Amino acid sequence: MSRFLSARRATLAPYTPGEQPKDARYIKLNTNESPFPPSEQARRYAAEAAATLNLYSDPECTTLREKLAAICGVEPGEVLPTNGSDEILNFAFMAFCDDTHPAVFADITYGFYPVFAQINNVPMIEKPLRDDFTIDPADYVGHKGLVVIANPNAPTGIAKTRDEMEAIIRANPEAVVVVDEAYVDFGAESCVPLIHKYGNLLVTQTFSKSRSMAGARLGWGIACKELMADLNAVKYATNPYNVNAMTMAAGIGALADESYTRENCRTIMENREWTRQQLTALGYEVLPSKTNFLFVKHPTVSGEEIYTNLRKKGILVRHFTKERIRDYNRITVGSIEQMRAVVAALGEEAGA
Amino acid sequence: MSRFLSARRATLAPYTPGEQPKDARYIKLNTNESPFPPSEQARRYAAEAAATLNLYSDPECTTLREKLAAICGVEPGEVLPTNGSDEILNFAFMAFCDDTHPAVFADITYGFYPVFAQINNVPMIEKPLRDDFTIDPADYVGHKGLVVIANPNAPTGIAKTRDEMEAIIRANPEAVVVVDEAYVDFGAESCVPLIHKYGNLLVTQTFSKSRSMAGARLGWGIACKELMADLNAVKYATNPYNVNAMTMAAGIGALADESYTRENCRTIMENREWTRQQLTALGYEVLPSKTNFLFVKHPTVSGEEIYTNLRKKGILVRHFTKERIRDYNRITVGSIEQMRAVVAALGEEAGA
Repeated sequence: MSRFLSARRATLAPYTPGEQPKDARYIKLNTNESPFPPSEQARRYAAEAAATLNLYSDPECTTLREKLAAICGVEPGEVLPTNGSDEILNFAFMAFCDDTHPAVFADITYGFYPVFAQINNVPMIEKPLRDDFTIDPADYVGHKGLVVIANPNAPTGIAKTRDEMEAIIRANPEAVVVVDEAYVDFGAESCVPLIHKYGNLLVTQTFSKSRSMAGARLGWGIACKELMADLNAVKYATNPYNVNAMTMAAGIGALADESYTRENCRTIMENREWTRQQLTALGYEVLPSKTNFLFVKHPTVSGEEIYTNLRKKGILVRHFTKERIRDYNRITVGSIEQMRAVVAALGEEAGA
Repeated sequence: MSRFLSARRATLAPYTPGEQPKDARYIKLNTNESPFPPSEQARRYAAEAAATLNLYSDPECTTLREKLAAICGVEPGEVLPTNGSDEILNFAFMAFCDDTHPAVFADITYGFYPVFAQINNVPMIEKPLRDDFTIDPADYVGHKGLVVIANPNAPTGIAKTRDEMEAIIRANPEAVVVVDEAYVDFGAESCVPLIHKYGNLLVTQTFSKSRSMAGARLGWGIACKELMADLNAVKYATNPYNVNAMTMAAGIGALADESYTRENCRTIMENREWTRQQLTALGYEVLPSKTNFLFVKHPTVSGEEIYTNLRKKGILVRHFTKERIRDYNRITVGSIEQMRAVVAALGEEAGA
């Protein structure tokens, strides 16, 4: 830290991304990446776009917005592509929160929400999940500012139905409700169909997981045009060319190949259910997941010990030190070969 | 605007990017893009990186930082790659400004500085350039907070020498001085060699102009490790994976092909001097430029009229409506064919 750092930032606790080891020694199940390469079309479009990088990318992302709108069943003006879904989340904190409009979210959820609250100097209210790690709807009534709910939630994997989410959206008419659907394509219900019904709903999604494009940084928001006007005002005051030309092209390519995406999601869901059965049979407790990861604990072996031993065996998973979840590990669902390896290793940990 | 927009943002005046026409009818000299394609190596590396987009990009940008450090003559820990140089500029406003630490910059300079001040809710002090559009060093003494100087300046094209810049850095020991060197490769002196001498200096550069990569969104900052610690704290609280995998690879490719960059810069400088002579001979006033653009006015024909008539002839240049510079147009220096076309069109405007 330098002596120039503003007092505003003195206590800044940044988000910690999962480890990105430089060598390829690991079976990498720690950052919820897809085991499948991006669509051939995404790759080809991106390579073509690289030929004209001397020109700025389209700040309006016109073609990408049209394709996203068609797939989401909304208008192009109701879609905003961003530099990862982190950026649309940050835009929401920037647009809708201030000293008297806090951000409200669960105690166990995506670790970036408290960081966004802090970097934007806005108050936050953390609502503890129930003992079974589900959201208590009674905690999400009558807020103002921003309510942020990851659905399905991370790192638990637990999803609420669209009807349950709609009740929360309806119960907070003075707040913008963000439904972070980073993992929605692995079996959960999307709230996108509700955006024309609720002027306070912002849904966020990403190409990182189901479309195998974590390295491209592409997410998007879906909301009514009034909220979009606010979010676009923030975008043009922060990062007008927020989606680079190659990522934009890759996104258009991926959307032209939706059958590939659906097939990959189906495989991940099959692998997830197989892994869940195997681990349950080994005595592990596995939370019900609608995502591409499983949140897993053993009744007697500590989460940290499991994490450390898997690492020694060349398998990286994600362990969090937060009190309520320190007994768990978050394990990305990868290929069936990767899942066989992690089940075998966890069998050894369980003394099977 | 929705009823949810925070009062903080109610008066937000976003940055207006230059027009990006969807058709290819125009000779496009309005956004200071390079007329040359990116290096073959940049394209090839980017296409290769597209194959593994399912994995997150390296948040530390390790290899890119090493290459940048080697070219800049600094340590990898003194370099921070960002999503365009706009992002490192924004990080500086976020890190070093607050209510009692204003941002100080010229009245005529890059139009994003006041937007960054506004979006970060920090006070700004605009220092008018002298009548000849040069900076008065007496305006930049004893500030605290952030002093931001584009060198060469935009949209004027005028550069100060390194010695002149050093005097300003020395005169503001209680402020971080940002030297925005987006256009430095077209003939100006860089302040990078000063970063080990001054703990309050942050230099920013970009791949957009001299390396033909505007569409890739890649910039970087160079500063001592203490300032870097602050800027990295902001990065990890905002956008940890801020450089996507394809852009990172393209950047590494471009840096492996520096002779191509130097050759292109030489051509642009030759075309600039040719254009300047031609326009001067036609009666235009042309500010001395160390950039890839010229700032041009005619003694009797208005800037707006010239802009409009060029547009009708299929040539896009940039016209600003700000009072002091409304008689000027900013004309990107492109290929010699493009320069011949704009000189011919401006000849007609001048009644030649």
